[in-house]
Amino acid sequence: MTDSIDREALAAARESARPRYEEFSSSGLKLDITRGKPCTAQLDLAEDLLVALKPGDHSTEAEGDLRNYGGAAKGVLALREMFSPLVDVPADQLVARDNSSLSLMHFCVASSFFRALPGGEKPWAGEEVVFLAPAPGYDRHFSVCEELGVQLRTVAMTPEGPDMDEVERLVAEDARIKGIWCVPKYSNPTGITFSDEVVRRLAEMPTAAPDFRIYWDNAYAIHHVRAQHDRLASILDACAKAGNEDRAFVFASTSKVTFAGGGVSFFGSSQANVAWFLARDSMRSIGPDKVNQLRHVRFFGDTAGVEAHMEKHREILEPKFDAVATALDADLTPLGIASWSDPNGGYFVSLDVVPGTARRIVQLAKDAGVALTPAGATFPGGDDPEDRNIRIAPSYPTTEELDTALQVLTTCVILAAGEALLDA
Amino acid sequence: MTDSIDREALAAARESARPRYEEFSSSGLKLDITRGKPCTAQLDLAEDLLVALKPGDHSTEAEGDLRNYGGAAKGVLALREMFSPLVDVPADQLVARDNSSLSLMHFCVASSFFRALPGGEKPWAGEEVVFLAPAPGYDRHFSVCEELGVQLRTVAMTPEGPDMDEVERLVAEDARIKGIWCVPKYSNPTGITFSDEVVRRLAEMPTAAPDFRIYWDNAYAIHHVRAQHDRLASILDACAKAGNEDRAFVFASTSKVTFAGGGVSFFGSSQANVAWFLARDSMRSIGPDKVNQLRHVRFFGDTAGVEAHMEKHREILEPKFDAVATALDADLTPLGIASWSDPNGGYFVSLDVVPGTARRIVQLAKDAGVALTPAGATFPGGDDPEDRNIRIAPSYPTTEELDTALQVLTTCVILAAGEALLDA
Repeated sequence: MTDSIDREALAAARESARPRYEEFSSSGLKLDITRGKPCTAQLDLAEDLLVALKPGDHSTEAEGDLRNYGGAAKGVLALREMFSPLVDVPADQLVARDNSSLSLMHFCVASSFFRALPGGEKPWAGEEVVFLAPAPGYDRHFSVCEELGVQLRTVAMTPEGPDMDEVERLVAEDARIKGIWCVPKYSNPTGITFSDEVVRRLAEMPTAAPDFRIYWDNAYAIHHVRAQHDRLASILDACAKAGNEDRAFVFASTSKVTFAGGGVSFFGSSQANVAWFLARDSMRSIGPDKVNQLRHVRFFGDTAGVEAHMEKHREILEPKFDAVATALDADLTPLGIASWSDPNGGYFVSLDVVPGTARRIVQLAKDAGVALTPAGATFPGGDDPEDRNIRIAPSYPTTEELDTALQVLTTCVILAAGEALLDA
Repeated sequence: MTDSIDREALAAARESARPRYEEFSSSGLKLDITRGKPCTAQLDLAEDLLVALKPGDHSTEAEGDLRNYGGAAKGVLALREMFSPLVDVPADQLVARDNSSLSLMHFCVASSFFRALPGGEKPWAGEEVVFLAPAPGYDRHFSVCEELGVQLRTVAMTPEGPDMDEVERLVAEDARIKGIWCVPKYSNPTGITFSDEVVRRLAEMPTAAPDFRIYWDNAYAIHHVRAQHDRLASILDACAKAGNEDRAFVFASTSKVTFAGGGVSFFGSSQANVAWFLARDSMRSIGPDKVNQLRHVRFFGDTAGVEAHMEKHREILEPKFDAVATALDADLTPLGIASWSDPNGGYFVSLDVVPGTARRIVQLAKDAGVALTPAGATFPGGDDPEDRNIRIAPSYPTTEELDTALQVLTTCVILAAGEALLDA
């Protein structure tokens, strides 16, 4: 956002926005750009996953008959080997599980209350526990903490990652701080990738809590939008090098690779943490859905197959991100009333509007038939202190729907900016 | 077990058992009858599950595109309707989830520490919590409690179910008792089915804890071994009738119907409990593997299809249970040194030997190359106070392997009985 807003231009833009808004409002729109859902064309890319296994194809040399109980405590080896380079975790330290990586994060936080983590003196039960929440961030991370009684302490996000000066200060002095949420690559929602220096500082920083954990949700590890890919340093390598090898829990999934409602997930960490995880997990389940894991192995073939598959996703996503950039640039750049991200990957564009207008914009859009992520959702407690961040999820709608939704959105941004800056 | 053991006959049997044991020991056996795993022929019954979905078959009218996030908070409706009559839970109160019902039980116990149950005043965190453990019972139930710091209080199992006089007395006076583990049909390991009176008394009994829950693990609801099926009264109906409609959590799965390593699971309860469960579950996952749920719908077709499928399992299992009954009867009945179950369903035969000899028998069998479930495993803490119960799992081995394993077993029972009764 430029510092100098052109008030005259804004006034003129508002005049033309008003009838446009009325027209949208009366045309019965029902559009949704709230969540990072793959579109049908993306899901169709993995359609052959449905028939990846033929009768008789249900065993591996390493595990035996995958239809039965047991035999693969860490999950199917071939799958772990296939994804190991993609999530930057040695296969031996990588555990493959079911559909949802979020549920693995929830399980790790919850289990920490019952069983001491490696390095920890005792379980967290009865203690006041705080997690750092770089914000704007992923609302479901914050919800896990709220569900389990973990307090959230907001820290600022920068273009390089969390504000490390603040993070280092807080974790050094406060032993109640037991974790930090990170979406380190193509971050949700800002789209940035943590710099090597941020990764190094997270790994090296002294923490008052001996069982402090980085929840490294590498949700978009291979989810590129542009031909130019971001590169993320290995958190496990950095932690090991710093002598804090048990510090990071790595998570990933194929929810936006194959099927959001039928993929596989991953947990990766140090040997000690993996042993801790498996000990906890073995108390609740005799094993993951190994058949679906084999299905993924057969579908992709090898690591290069996964990468080729993600290139097809990219080809679908790039025009949608182009559409967002184009619309925002055309309608808002001349007015200087907003700024936004143009990430190389991930699922979101993060839009910063005139402070105090985000809620109003979401309401205006809703009244015109366009559902946006609730303003503030990217902050702990749903509370954006400046009321300025809006998360745009362009993947799910068709190009036509997206274009209309963006027109509605920029119209609402202009109207709300007018109210705030011209009427005040 | 008869009261009068024929010591002379035992002495003679021991003499012939000794060379037999030596022969087994030197023949390099490697047999395993430890766990209730389906055999390959049983798994093959569901092989077409692998190809139950064709490209393009990924949607339902009720839920839309199952490959994507969302749309089926309770799981796929058609699957819930299909299994509703089989697990005796109205479809609207039945939730379908992933691979493991044990993990749903773990999740319910763990979540109770963070979020108050319907009827409860507060979460269990910081409280001393006790579950009743009818024993012999299922070791993994006990492990869930040990993992989560829940104490176990053993109560006796009778041929009708838990000793209800004891259960009623304990839950009425002790508010720390928050739950009871039940495998109500073809119980693990004794094979009995709870009588209507036991179900009624469980539903009606006053409990000191307002948030007491029956963990009703109906793992073998449709897992018949004999043409004669046991019938189990509806726990949800009984609880509703007694005015305790939030008392029971029902669990079931297709682990021993389709694939142990790739099935679906169920949670059923009152509307209030289902709302509680879904509120908790929605904080950890955007939804279950709906694609695998549809796969099950297509594979079975309808409820009758599930029942027809289970009849094929029965045809495989019945000869194995016959083999156990025949071998135990031939070798042990004349000596009066053991008694055992001959259940109409489930996965186990429960063998009671001369008190004080169960551990010895398991060790002797192990030394001869036959793995049995560790003695005591069916009791909390692995401690069978009389050291007399052995769980036999006949499903997994081939008939030939099973016959050999049974010969080894009865030989060891005779040797250990001889040591205990003749050498003492």
